Amino acid sequence: MEKSRLEKQMDFCLEIDKEKFIGRQTYLSDGARKENDAEHAWHMAVMTLLLSEYANEEIDVLKTISMILIHDVVEIDAGDTYAYDEKAKESQEEREKAAADRLFGMLPEDQGKKFRALWDEFEARQTKEAKFARVMDNIQPLMLNAATKGKSWLEHAVNLSQVLDRNKRVQEGSEVLWDYAKENFIRPNLDAGRLIPDVELE
Amino acid sequence: MEKSRLEKQMDFCLEIDKEKFIGRQTYLSDGARKENDAEHAWHMAVMTLLLSEYANEEIDVLKTISMILIHDVVEIDAGDTYAYDEKAKESQEEREKAAADRLFGMLPEDQGKKFRALWDEFEARQTKEAKFARVMDNIQPLMLNAATKGKSWLEHAVNLSQVLDRNKRVQEGSEVLWDYAKENFIRPNLDAGRLIPDVELE
Repeated sequence: MEKSRLEKQMDFCLEIDKEKFIGRQTYLSDGARKENDAEHAWHMAVMTLLLSEYANEEIDVLKTISMILIHDVVEIDAGDTYAYDEKAKESQEEREKAAADRLFGMLPEDQGKKFRALWDEFEARQTKEAKFARVMDNIQPLMLNAATKGKSWLEHAVNLSQVLDRNKRVQEGSEVLWDYAKENFIRPNLDAGRLIPDVELE
Repeated sequence: MEKSRLEKQMDFCLEIDKEKFIGRQTYLSDGARKENDAEHAWHMAVMTLLLSEYANEEIDVLKTISMILIHDVVEIDAGDTYAYDEKAKESQEEREKAAADRLFGMLPEDQGKKFRALWDEFEARQTKEAKFARVMDNIQPLMLNAATKGKSWLEHAVNLSQVLDRNKRVQEGSEVLWDYAKENFIRPNLDAGRLIPDVELE
């Protein structure tokens, strides 16, 4: 017997609890442990409520927050790929697409399609909402890295050029927030020797 | 010199990282550890995206999710008060109001007022959005308790009457979700002897 609409929804709601098991490389602000995907998504969503006024173009806040809330669900199957792990990044797309098929496929068809479209939009990074969601995805860990005196950067011996490359498109979503992040999160850590200065910071 | 608007916003964004340190009594679905407030809020927010169609009255989803995302921020100062700890509940209101004053007071005035109003609305439980947010706040831990075979209930020797009292207003927000939770999360655990049967379950 096919499951009811509500059973499918509840099965998905329980399944995504596993996002709390997916660890990231960023330390929490006290430096005691690293955060997980669910905490990261919550943090980005609250930040969006406060910082959407700095989007280059006015955004649909509910759409942006919806995208943010589910953007890492695929990591339940595919795992977190560290921003500066070039080898893991090669197979990332394929692993994440298979995860999206399985996970969003658990939902009633209309909602599965809606969530898949939001996730595809986030990945494609073309719309103003996707660009702003990516700003949050980038500056939230920059903020925590700065708060922990570059703990994660030191652990992985990260170069400035890697950080700039990772964040090179932040300004497409918000010029204001990119300037703030550069001057408050990146430059002080560069000056303190916590990022390897392989290039100049403008 | 007074801080700029963006500095105040970013200070608040960093401060709320501490919500990830606030532990709850509910175990994650694998039973390995208990969840924290940030994970709980994220989970409730995604559930709202999927389950808002079951609200007794049509709700404003962005408003409901905003309320959910920040409803536990006060616990950064006030701590989590376990649903079945009667002593701690006596001083809960006073502790949480002082926390709201301090935390929302960090924000630019307009946003501080907006967040405070959302939190007050959640606490007062009068509007349809607040009632639905409370449904999420109640059924998310019921779902996890059921998934872990009542682990937290067994640990605290919880009575059925306590669970029913805690959840007695869920149906004000959603009759459908209350029925589902009662039949799928509460009754099977009662039948399995994981809740003390001090009253009848209708």
